[in-house]
Amino acid sequence: EPNRPDSWLPTLQTDTPEQGFELAVKLSRMGVKTTQPDIDALKQGRRQYAKDPDALIDASKVIAVHFSTIAAANDYWRDE
Amino acid sequence: EPNRPDSWLPTLQTDTPEQGFELAVKLSRMGVKTTQPDIDALKQGRRQYAKDPDALIDASKVIAVHFSTIAAANDYWRDE
Amino acid sequence: EPNRPDSWLPTLQTDTPEQGFELAVKLSRMGVKTTQPDIDALKQGRRQYAKDPDALIDASKVIAVHFSTIAAANDYWRDE
Amino acid sequence: EPNRPDSWLPTLQTDTPEQGFELAVKLSRMGVKTTQPDIDALKQGRRQYAKDPDALIDASKVIAVHFSTIAAANDYWRDE
Amino acid sequence: EPNRPDSWLPTLQTDTPEQGFELAVKLSRMGVKTTQPDIDALKQGRRQYAKDPDALIDASKVIAVHFSTIAAANDYWRDE
Amino acid sequence: EPNRPDSWLPTLQTDTPEQGFELAVKLSRMGVKTTQPDIDALKQGRRQYAKDPDALIDASKVIAVHFSTIAAANDYWRDE
Repeated sequence: EPNRPDSWLPTLQTDTPEQGFELAVKLSRMGVKTTQPDIDALKQGRRQYAKDPDALIDASKVIAVHFSTIAAANDYWRDE
Repeated sequence: EPNRPDSWLPTLQTDTPEQGFELAVKLSRMGVKTTQPDIDALKQGRRQYAKDPDALIDASKVIAVHFSTIAAANDYWRDE
Repeated sequence: EPNRPDSWLPTLQTDTPEQGFELAVKLSRMGVKTTQPDIDALKQGRRQYAKDPDALIDASKVIAVHFSTIAAANDYWRDE
Repeated sequence: EPNRPDSWLPTLQTDTPEQGFELAVKLSRMGVKTTQPDIDALKQGRRQYAKDPDALIDASKVIAVHFSTIAAANDYWRDE
Repeated sequence: EPNRPDSWLPTLQTDTPEQGFELAVKLSRMGVKTTQPDIDALKQGRRQYAKDPDALIDASKVIAVHFSTIAAANDYWRDE
Repeated sequence: EPNRPDSWLPTLQTDTPEQGFELAVKLSRMGVKTTQPDIDALKQGRRQYAKDPDALIDASKVIAVHFSTIAAANDYWRDE
């Protein structure tokens, strides 16, 4: 069953490292959303952790793990 | 002794990245369930951490580690 | 000096992904046991963290790191 | 759609390991900035965590994850 | 300047996965010792965290990261 | 622009695993220093976390991530 046309994650390929970083941010946020689908609760939570340095560093760590996956998926955009 | 027919994890292969992400979420939850098999305690715990931004970020980190494994297992769905 | 016959970790090879996940759980628990060999203290500790969502997520994270090692060791059970 | 000329992340390639480490620091900080774009809040946060040993270690952990990605992207600067 | 004869880490190669796990435990402890060389402080610290489930899980996580390195270094003991 | 002669990180290559571990410790500390360049604040911080078992384990975790990078960069010192 191939990709649903409206899939939020059709591919891991991106043209540039910057787009790869944006995809890593998106994956990190989807990881939170799958656990807490309630948008209001999410927004309230983001306001809270956006002022908490430890939480900001933790969020950056999740992005770093996803970015290493996306970078490998794009062979580190070597042929750039 | 090949896969039991009713195995919850028959393969790491998925058709699409989105299904790969869903499998990573499933693996993360199984990791919690193996430690705390009591469903009620689990549900009570999820209600609790679903309102805690730090816990939500941590849950997203576990998904990120599993997603990197699934993505490598599917060669990053390159031939998509 | 090859494997002691009664080694608790004779190999990283498993027939199926599900067995691979079980081995990852075992490795995570051995990691705790090497630091705290006292069984009673361990059991008391498990009762405690089994009710703590943050600890459950953290335990799932250790399993995720070991699972990525076991999956790579079994070439992601690709020929399944 | 190739790199925007003013992209903040045109490539993962660096001439030297030291530049690779600097890029890993930059990526870690961008991970924080995408979650908290408000510069004042960021500066206030940095003053706070710069005095907190746990947060400093955590920040170093994010840099370590990004550095492993950049090092792999540059084939560990082997031909240095 | 080859290995000092009395090096505590002459090689990453081990005969068996079990020895590989023991080496990962040793590396994790050396990581603590390089930061806190004072043996008494270390022992006092270990007594403390050996009763703290969160710390025990964290210690297991460090072992998991080192184990993935040692397993790769030994090509997952495939020819076992 | 090749390595500055006085670069603190001219290469990831080391002769032995033990030197590789020392480089991983150095990288972990540089990760802290880039965030907190003030030496006194750093020293004060180290005295603090050197008595805190959780922080010591966390510091060991950062070393473990860097060590996996250095080990891969040296092909696990296989030809040792």
